[in-house]
Amino acid sequence: MSTTTINADLGEGLGLHAFGNDEHLMEVIDLANVACGFHASDPQIMDRTVALAKEHGVSVGAHPGLPDLAGFGRRAMALSPHEVENIVRYQVGALSGFLTGHGVPLNHIKPHGALYGMVGRDPELMRGVARVAADYGVPVLGLANTAHKTVCDEFGVPFIAEVYVDLNYDADGTLIIERTPAPAVPDEAAARIRSGLTQGVIQSVDGGDLQVTFDSVCVHSDPPNAVDVVRAVRSAITFS
Amino acid sequence: MSTTTINADLGEGLGLHAFGNDEHLMEVIDLANVACGFHASDPQIMDRTVALAKEHGVSVGAHPGLPDLAGFGRRAMALSPHEVENIVRYQVGALSGFLTGHGVPLNHIKPHGALYGMVGRDPELMRGVARVAADYGVPVLGLANTAHKTVCDEFGVPFIAEVYVDLNYDADGTLIIERTPAPAVPDEAAARIRSGLTQGVIQSVDGGDLQVTFDSVCVHSDPPNAVDVVRAVRSAITFS
Amino acid sequence: MSTTTINADLGEGLGLHAFGNDEHLMEVIDLANVACGFHASDPQIMDRTVALAKEHGVSVGAHPGLPDLAGFGRRAMALSPHEVENIVRYQVGALSGFLTGHGVPLNHIKPHGALYGMVGRDPELMRGVARVAADYGVPVLGLANTAHKTVCDEFGVPFIAEVYVDLNYDADGTLIIERTPAPAVPDEAAARIRSGLTQGVIQSVDGGDLQVTFDSVCVHSDPPNAVDVVRAVRSAITFS
Amino acid sequence: MSTTTINADLGEGLGLHAFGNDEHLMEVIDLANVACGFHASDPQIMDRTVALAKEHGVSVGAHPGLPDLAGFGRRAMALSPHEVENIVRYQVGALSGFLTGHGVPLNHIKPHGALYGMVGRDPELMRGVARVAADYGVPVLGLANTAHKTVCDEFGVPFIAEVYVDLNYDADGTLIIERTPAPAVPDEAAARIRSGLTQGVIQSVDGGDLQVTFDSVCVHSDPPNAVDVVRAVRSAITFS
Repeated sequence: MSTTTINADLGEGLGLHAFGNDEHLMEVIDLANVACGFHASDPQIMDRTVALAKEHGVSVGAHPGLPDLAGFGRRAMALSPHEVENIVRYQVGALSGFLTGHGVPLNHIKPHGALYGMVGRDPELMRGVARVAADYGVPVLGLANTAHKTVCDEFGVPFIAEVYVDLNYDADGTLIIERTPAPAVPDEAAARIRSGLTQGVIQSVDGGDLQVTFDSVCVHSDPPNAVDVVRAVRSAITFS
Repeated sequence: MSTTTINADLGEGLGLHAFGNDEHLMEVIDLANVACGFHASDPQIMDRTVALAKEHGVSVGAHPGLPDLAGFGRRAMALSPHEVENIVRYQVGALSGFLTGHGVPLNHIKPHGALYGMVGRDPELMRGVARVAADYGVPVLGLANTAHKTVCDEFGVPFIAEVYVDLNYDADGTLIIERTPAPAVPDEAAARIRSGLTQGVIQSVDGGDLQVTFDSVCVHSDPPNAVDVVRAVRSAITFS
Repeated sequence: MSTTTINADLGEGLGLHAFGNDEHLMEVIDLANVACGFHASDPQIMDRTVALAKEHGVSVGAHPGLPDLAGFGRRAMALSPHEVENIVRYQVGALSGFLTGHGVPLNHIKPHGALYGMVGRDPELMRGVARVAADYGVPVLGLANTAHKTVCDEFGVPFIAEVYVDLNYDADGTLIIERTPAPAVPDEAAARIRSGLTQGVIQSVDGGDLQVTFDSVCVHSDPPNAVDVVRAVRSAITFS
Repeated sequence: MSTTTINADLGEGLGLHAFGNDEHLMEVIDLANVACGFHASDPQIMDRTVALAKEHGVSVGAHPGLPDLAGFGRRAMALSPHEVENIVRYQVGALSGFLTGHGVPLNHIKPHGALYGMVGRDPELMRGVARVAADYGVPVLGLANTAHKTVCDEFGVPFIAEVYVDLNYDADGTLIIERTPAPAVPDEAAARIRSGLTQGVIQSVDGGDLQVTFDSVCVHSDPPNAVDVVRAVRSAITFS
């Protein structure tokens, strides 16, 4: 029986602004990466999102982002390693306030958006994330072929490798992070995951084969068809 | 030997903006109420402030404020009880991230500025603060003659009563919270504390006697003479 | 032929967060009250909204709010008169940057949300709004039975009186501003406007008659049926 | 008689946080670059700063920065050209609200901190700044050997070239922008300006000669000796 999980970034609304199909996605995913107020969310939404995850038995990870609401944390910033560590620490701590309130453990940490890309490329920045994960005794969720994993290994921090179904990969295996990603097509998402699970390869954007191993599949929460994509991916996981 | 402590609000700078004599005050106070990023502070300053407190053996409390940097959390906002609970929870959690990093326990919670006044007047709002304190198993630091204490009693949350030396009290004992308080005069501060400790009374703004009992004395950190005020108060505590 | 206009608050998204049916509403309204970044919006959205208004020949007013993105400017704050004037001045100026870029004149100023209520109740606060309107030589859009109008009269600032179709009025004529208003029913909205235009009365929440005169009808932009409500109101205006 | 001016970045406080010797500097400088709320300042401070400049006959320019209070606008962000144009437009507009209130004309635009560096290196980003300057009919204040000037030339926007006395230059003439610059030494600042004005050269950080022509000298406002530096530079200008 497969242990591959499905994760999604949730709780990314702000005030009156809803974002993503959180209610429906919580019914079908395994891990929720919950926004912590810097790139999206606010205390009301964080409380509601943790409560919703608990209700559905979904594991909750922190999803810290850059301090940039207008850019949704998708605009890289020149931060020092110490700044990266501290904005991650602040946000993980903030989420832990709601986890404490609901009696839910912190499951993992997954950096968001441009921060995810920045720490994947720069081990020095990634060390700040790993230090916080080590302090909380939780794994990092990220990309196996980047500093996400090498730095976690260096710190003895457990690692959950993920693959994306709605973002493309360069010929050299680099995830292409877009400011406004296009929605995935359910069948194509399922095909990618089947190929990844059974043959250990997925296709890069130029059609070449990329070798992959992964523990989790990430699905973006905001396209209207997000639930359909998750169902297709779940089916691929179950029958691969 | 007196167990009366001295507390101060610290870590209230923002980015390049310094605020208060944190370095020197840490040498002379007992409890630091550390700002959490909503009315002042940022992740860098929170990290530095917790490290400084640890270095000096000062106990660290969370000092959550209203989300209003430009107003320094001194402009009351119409928040629902649930909103108050969640902004307190968010900020206490955020601070706990740095406490976890430095291996320092959370000592207490003291709301800041207009929030301090709002929850003191409205038990419904104060219940949110008490719930967070109960979840973390720490006392609240506040005013004994307000909802600060009555609600803590209701929740079985321990309470640390404080008195101010640089703010005045109305004839009915209400603390007068100002947007920009005037600095205290060390001798007058010491006289107030001596009077409070030995006779159980301090003077209201109109010269009348107010009965007080307190466990801690609050001194504002930003006037240039803050350290002198603390020394005068310490002397009054020691020899009363 | 009626000169009664229809106005709506637009440009109230934030970053990736859309809000309201701006594209469709621009086709059917006369005046757009454009958010200025404090309660909602950002520079990208302001630019796009002004461009859209220009394309549809819709007049553009500034819609300044309280500095509170998470509360959508719907949580009253204790501001001084000078603070009110300056946050209005800042936001009207900010919008004027985009009006200058697109060669569109500023048509009016309408405060948003809790600020709208605050300045309607307190002439001292409203004077700040009137001063900015006087400096820009534009009318204020607001409620005729509040300080909105009396202070504009005092300053010789022209006034556009509006009536709401998706908010109720107290027995004494006070508009009931809600944090999350319920959508209007198109037929009921049309009936209210017909009654107002032909008989000079609308019903208060308790069924009593309120005398009203108005120059403009405000329709909220975010309910899914907002365009239908505007069409119904337009029809009522045209055939009254 | 020299027409070389002295400029300083002012109004960079935030709420209770003062920053720089604004009151004294206004007495000795010619051009004030006034912060607009994104990297520092708030509506109260902008109003006060424009009033102070008017009182002292100091010309007021807009000093727009990146949206990053905690980083004081000194952390580069990956913005699109359209985003740069719009954040500059928003902030120049916001300042114009206060200029309108005080009857003071906009004199120039000078981007702040990391934005200043970003648009100096990338003509595509600089075009957004030039477009706003063209719309307002004002010059840009910047570095002659960067895209600041080449793009202004391209747009027919007048240009004021500046030189720094408290930042160093690389061997190739690139200004070294630091997160926390060291204070200038008055004598050295004066010597640099004398050398620049009489021989057209200043020294790079490695001691080599850099050819410079400039219309204005920039002095940072925050070191305690800022007024002394300005006086020394003024003397060098007057007697060169």
